[in-house]
Amino acid sequence: MKKITKLLVANRGEIALRVLRSAREMGLQTVAIYSEADRNALHVRYADEAVCVGPPASKDSYLRGDKIIEVCKQLGVDAIHPGYGFLSENAEFARMVKEAGIIFVGPSPEAMNIMGDKLSAKQAVQAYNIPLVPGTAEAISDVEEAKRIAETVGFPILIKASAGGGGKGMRLVHAAAEFEEQMQLAINEAVSAFGDGAVFIEKFVTGPRHIEIQVLGDEHGNIVHLFERECSIQRRHQKVIEEAPSSVLTPELRAEMGRCAVDVARACNYTGAGTVEFLLDDQRNFYFLEMNTRLQVEHPVTECITGLDLVKEQIKVAQGLPLSFRQEDLTITGHAVELRVYAEDPQNNFLPDIGNLAVYVRPQGPGVRVDDGFEQGMDIPIYYDPMIAKLVTYGKDRTEAIERMLRAIDEYQITGIETTLPFGRFVLRHPAFVSGDFDTNFIKDHFQPSVLANNAPNAELEQLAAVFAAKLLTEQKGAAVLENGATHSGTTVQASNWKKNRLA
Amino acid sequence: MKKITKLLVANRGEIALRVLRSAREMGLQTVAIYSEADRNALHVRYADEAVCVGPPASKDSYLRGDKIIEVCKQLGVDAIHPGYGFLSENAEFARMVKEAGIIFVGPSPEAMNIMGDKLSAKQAVQAYNIPLVPGTAEAISDVEEAKRIAETVGFPILIKASAGGGGKGMRLVHAAAEFEEQMQLAINEAVSAFGDGAVFIEKFVTGPRHIEIQVLGDEHGNIVHLFERECSIQRRHQKVIEEAPSSVLTPELRAEMGRCAVDVARACNYTGAGTVEFLLDDQRNFYFLEMNTRLQVEHPVTECITGLDLVKEQIKVAQGLPLSFRQEDLTITGHAVELRVYAEDPQNNFLPDIGNLAVYVRPQGPGVRVDDGFEQGMDIPIYYDPMIAKLVTYGKDRTEAIERMLRAIDEYQITGIETTLPFGRFVLRHPAFVSGDFDTNFIKDHFQPSVLANNAPNAELEQLAAVFAAKLLTEQKGAAVLENGATHSGTTVQASNWKKNRLA
Repeated sequence: MKKITKLLVANRGEIALRVLRSAREMGLQTVAIYSEADRNALHVRYADEAVCVGPPASKDSYLRGDKIIEVCKQLGVDAIHPGYGFLSENAEFARMVKEAGIIFVGPSPEAMNIMGDKLSAKQAVQAYNIPLVPGTAEAISDVEEAKRIAETVGFPILIKASAGGGGKGMRLVHAAAEFEEQMQLAINEAVSAFGDGAVFIEKFVTGPRHIEIQVLGDEHGNIVHLFERECSIQRRHQKVIEEAPSSVLTPELRAEMGRCAVDVARACNYTGAGTVEFLLDDQRNFYFLEMNTRLQVEHPVTECITGLDLVKEQIKVAQGLPLSFRQEDLTITGHAVELRVYAEDPQNNFLPDIGNLAVYVRPQGPGVRVDDGFEQGMDIPIYYDPMIAKLVTYGKDRTEAIERMLRAIDEYQITGIETTLPFGRFVLRHPAFVSGDFDTNFIKDHFQPSVLANNAPNAELEQLAAVFAAKLLTEQKGAAVLENGATHSGTTVQASNWKKNRLA
Repeated sequence: MKKITKLLVANRGEIALRVLRSAREMGLQTVAIYSEADRNALHVRYADEAVCVGPPASKDSYLRGDKIIEVCKQLGVDAIHPGYGFLSENAEFARMVKEAGIIFVGPSPEAMNIMGDKLSAKQAVQAYNIPLVPGTAEAISDVEEAKRIAETVGFPILIKASAGGGGKGMRLVHAAAEFEEQMQLAINEAVSAFGDGAVFIEKFVTGPRHIEIQVLGDEHGNIVHLFERECSIQRRHQKVIEEAPSSVLTPELRAEMGRCAVDVARACNYTGAGTVEFLLDDQRNFYFLEMNTRLQVEHPVTECITGLDLVKEQIKVAQGLPLSFRQEDLTITGHAVELRVYAEDPQNNFLPDIGNLAVYVRPQGPGVRVDDGFEQGMDIPIYYDPMIAKLVTYGKDRTEAIERMLRAIDEYQITGIETTLPFGRFVLRHPAFVSGDFDTNFIKDHFQPSVLANNAPNAELEQLAAVFAAKLLTEQKGAAVLENGATHSGTTVQASNWKKNRLA
């Protein structure tokens, strides 16, 4: 066993704090790094030691692998946890860490390389009979051959520019008759946008749901899966609400997807915590998309339903310990939902809304977990991902988890910044979400910004009331203010900010 | 089914807030009551409506059943949840509520009457073969007869004044030879203290542990138990740390005590949530002590290990719904520990230490639940129980729950008031607690106030630092202050208040 005694967390915000908490529970010494923009951040105060690694821009601080390794050497750090984002999926960094004699809490650089490239990932899993979205394995420019493939795959199909991105050069084709014309348009678009006319042909998945499977492997060849997370509620192709388990998987399908996910991990000798992403269509066929070789943002929902602490499991595996459980020891208990509370305005196309957390009061009570890195009075810096917090609720079943989430959203007091909280309330009350009958098109199909505007007719007034109430609470200059216009025996006093928030 | 649409919570503090949260999740309208001392309390702000019922003293406000029923009539309330304490075990109040056509969320007045008196409780359970602490069933004053009984019961025995309390007229007798002299002393003491020389003879239980079983009954004759809570860590005969499950019960003993608890509940036709208290001796014999006919303070640990929301279960039963599970559906998952955070000074015989919560920052993160009724800046009123919060941690096993509790204690920032947090840290690190080898004498056997003094050499300095840090955080006047004496590239900055707290 490679004993870890001092762990550096090469990240910031909620995930840094979350990793530090588990490390502390394990009795490890902890080191935080921070940029000049994060001097007052909670993760800096929480760690035993904290080191500034550079100016605010990520490329000058959180992405400076060389500096981070230097800090480890100076402080006698023996392991680095990369969190998610930043350097977490950078195989070159993982290699440098290893070469410096430091443990990287994550998979091997080789596994990261294989899964970091879609083509090499697909090649690696070939031997394991993993279902892929049917289509061309490689880019193609011959229209006749493409048409033959399209007919084999079956319509509708997607034509995607090989060099593409952002939807450019992408065409949806419903029938063979339209194919040639659409392919020519796609090629023209791809040439003009990327200077490269090669395209892929891919089956168009109808009613797609984003289902991912959490896996965990050790250095002794043991790999298990920790069931699925449903991540179909997305805005701008980014997840905003996740849950576990999915309301659409049967036990048989869950076991089958779980086996496939374990095979994907085995295909790259995966160690540590990873996530295998699948697309599930409306006929319950599933297709492997990619593997994320790190801890996911949404890992807490898996922790809730399995009772495991994934960060601790990562650290134990990194020390060379074998997993302390087998697949058959694992069961799902209850249901968990996560809402990512972003500093962005759902009424303005989810654009970031940075500023100061004038009022910031977290929800409490049974079945509520808030992972964040902020406190009241702090600024949300403009340099990084605008996520303020992950609001996670857990209940004995899906209904209770949803009711708790709605209750927790009502309790959450954030002013000074627009957030995705009202959007979360909208989704969790929406019949399509409540029934479980939704897919990745949920926002396109069901959401219009105006539904939130109607819900909150007096947003400014509410904000003022909440600021006022918080100020009153902090200063407690006396009870008189709250009592304006109300006598106190047998007379009703309306609750202030909480109630207003709930009615919104 | 008697549909509840509007629920009044006849309580204050954390339990009022906790009940309101579950009621809101169930979609009920909510009414809070408060005394003049609680005008700014969180439960008042949380409820849909709130009514002041009188001056600060409990007898003039929270105990004014007549006023509370009047409020219900005025506001169209159809059910009252009494919480714990105050009117929760007052059969007369429960009867008045019922007569007013309002649902009392709790057992029948008859069940409360039976279990409210130790003698009638023992008589009620007689038919069910429930083990009682061996001894005289009724008071006795004949020394010869008492000695015969003592010899049958077996030494050591306790002689207790019938009219007694507070240890007066209580004698521990180790052998028959001492009996007559000790009984005479006990009688003399009882006569002089209470004017009544009658005494009870009772087996002295060695190595006693306080183990209680949570039960739940509906109006259709179904009664289940929700396993045990271990409540042996007490100061002044009051619980301060509880956990579930107990580290000392075998599955067989758990099932046996569970069956007994269900029988006790059946003996009084119990409905709703109740707790059957047992004493367990060092030979693992258990004896029925009493039944508490209300929700217990420590119910969250049971919620953690069963995944049930006990308040919701109470409300469902009160509406006449049958339980939605059978005994065989219930299992224990994980382990939970609760620390009662009292505003009292462990270094000064746990005397209440009332004042203002100058700094109040709750711990967060996986497996941590805080039930409280306060926020930073609030006063702890002198009129009521000095409990600030219940800090509950949950983990996959006992070790993890304890590690989380220690981490959470470190994170908890409370200044302005002495609390039981340092005492909690002492207990949770103590080898006797960690090994599970402890009983109700833990504090007497292991705790001296000086152990805390040694742990915190710079208490005042720490307090200042924490106040300062909180102020800084709220105002965020700039980063310069935190950085005193530290350069920022590759140099270590010590974390401030959190770290100091942890080292304490």
